[in-house]
Amino acid sequence: MVDTESFIEQKVTEISEAIGDSNAIIALSGGVDSSTAAALAYEAVGDQLTPVYVDTGLMRKGETEEIRETFSYMENLRVVDARERFLDALSGVVDPEKKRHVIGEGFIREFETVAREVDADYLVQGTIYPDRIESEGTIKSHHNVGGLPDVIDFEGIVEPMRDLYKDEVREVARALDLEEIVSERMPFPGPGLAVRVLGEVTEGKLEVAREANHVVEEELAEHEPWQALAAVLGKATGVKGDNRVHGWVVAVRSVESRDGMTARAQEVDWATLQRIQSRITGENENVSRVVYDVTHKPPATIEYE
Amino acid sequence: MVDTESFIEQKVTEISEAIGDSNAIIALSGGVDSSTAAALAYEAVGDQLTPVYVDTGLMRKGETEEIRETFSYMENLRVVDARERFLDALSGVVDPEKKRHVIGEGFIREFETVAREVDADYLVQGTIYPDRIESEGTIKSHHNVGGLPDVIDFEGIVEPMRDLYKDEVREVARALDLEEIVSERMPFPGPGLAVRVLGEVTEGKLEVAREANHVVEEELAEHEPWQALAAVLGKATGVKGDNRVHGWVVAVRSVESRDGMTARAQEVDWATLQRIQSRITGENENVSRVVYDVTHKPPATIEYE
Repeated sequence: MVDTESFIEQKVTEISEAIGDSNAIIALSGGVDSSTAAALAYEAVGDQLTPVYVDTGLMRKGETEEIRETFSYMENLRVVDARERFLDALSGVVDPEKKRHVIGEGFIREFETVAREVDADYLVQGTIYPDRIESEGTIKSHHNVGGLPDVIDFEGIVEPMRDLYKDEVREVARALDLEEIVSERMPFPGPGLAVRVLGEVTEGKLEVAREANHVVEEELAEHEPWQALAAVLGKATGVKGDNRVHGWVVAVRSVESRDGMTARAQEVDWATLQRIQSRITGENENVSRVVYDVTHKPPATIEYE
Repeated sequence: MVDTESFIEQKVTEISEAIGDSNAIIALSGGVDSSTAAALAYEAVGDQLTPVYVDTGLMRKGETEEIRETFSYMENLRVVDARERFLDALSGVVDPEKKRHVIGEGFIREFETVAREVDADYLVQGTIYPDRIESEGTIKSHHNVGGLPDVIDFEGIVEPMRDLYKDEVREVARALDLEEIVSERMPFPGPGLAVRVLGEVTEGKLEVAREANHVVEEELAEHEPWQALAAVLGKATGVKGDNRVHGWVVAVRSVESRDGMTARAQEVDWATLQRIQSRITGENENVSRVVYDVTHKPPATIEYE
């Protein structure tokens, strides 16, 4: 990448020329990639852009509210409440690939509806370089909404950041004053908390995952991880009072990385791990166990599914 | 407990008087409790005692061979190969309580067969004080073979260690020269590796659990845990080469305790955790993730099911 300011200037011009007088749409996931792409596109075409944020019910604590606030300056921001539709569609689905597929389809359906409503001819996407490399090997097939161009007949796809690495995206985001997104948000997968609960997605598991992710992000912020998360793995025995119970096992993961393509499990001190386990088991009586992921990528991935 | 030597002398006399000229049987699990009870009973009645070790296929690596060797001095040692019968009975069983039940029933069936064959009137059991307390609250209903007296009509039950804590049992074991059992064996539950694989018991999961437990016991020996173990939790994504795979998640647990009734997750240094994860993921290509359990008991239990 050339210097950040020149990059932004160049891309704004390119996007503006590409889209012209037409309407464009972009899927806002809440992550730094799509947020940055949206900000770039808004610089270029203003209210011709409709940023669409789908509240799938698979989002982190407070995320929908934060998105609404951060992007309130864009006139055509759409926040779609699709929680019930997603949970219904995911009911009974256990296979991880099937889950991703159902979520991918759901996203497409929601965007399609809005795209037709606003008569969008262009699709802006926050694809970055590692996404393109990894989709070739199908490592994260539906982490991003890849299927959109196949079902809606756009005149063109605009991917202003397709050659950037993550740290370069962060530089651009900072230059665009997306401070909150950059500083407070870690990478978060498209299917959201669904890939942080193994097996079927249920409201109960999502609640555990949402609270646990909140605790982990708070407690590990000062360790400055590339990504820190919590996942619900399954049920194991625990003990409440004098009785045996079956409670959720929550995995905590915190990794260091330059680009997400490889990652190192982060060494976190025992006192912090104890504070995390105590908060997670204390705040939800259905959690009886907290484990810390000590595996690098490879052989593990950063996310759980 | 009075001093160890006097305790042994007193118990040997009591057992001898209780059993008289009859035959007795004891279930050897390979753990320190039943081993010590067997050694005490053998001191008392010699070849009137038939120690029965059931190879369920749920045992640790090399365990059956070690048992055979350690107790080869007892004339009537029986090693029953019941591996196929247990795996068949466990096929399709997912519920943890049901699993314990099936295994408990299987044990009873195997012992019953031998008890009738040798015409045993007395049952010797390695029950210790915390077992009695915990069964009242049903915290570990089938960790020990509790159902035996209900289906076989013994003349009497002999429980020489019913008032001892675990550390006292270890003292007795040492005094009885059960050095190998004391120094090399950690507490191991009756249902064996079945409670260290969540969900259905399959040969594939057992293989992963067996190797992982072996690695954990080796690597953590010098940390002198009360108990150290590995459990197979479920499948999550991993990456091999350029492709996404679904591999097993293995949990590693190491605890400090005085009596097993409460326990503290042990602080293990990062280098050791890394060596463990690298060996476990390296030795079995179906394992993509290793997590370390940081929860105490309560709210978790020591074992996983």
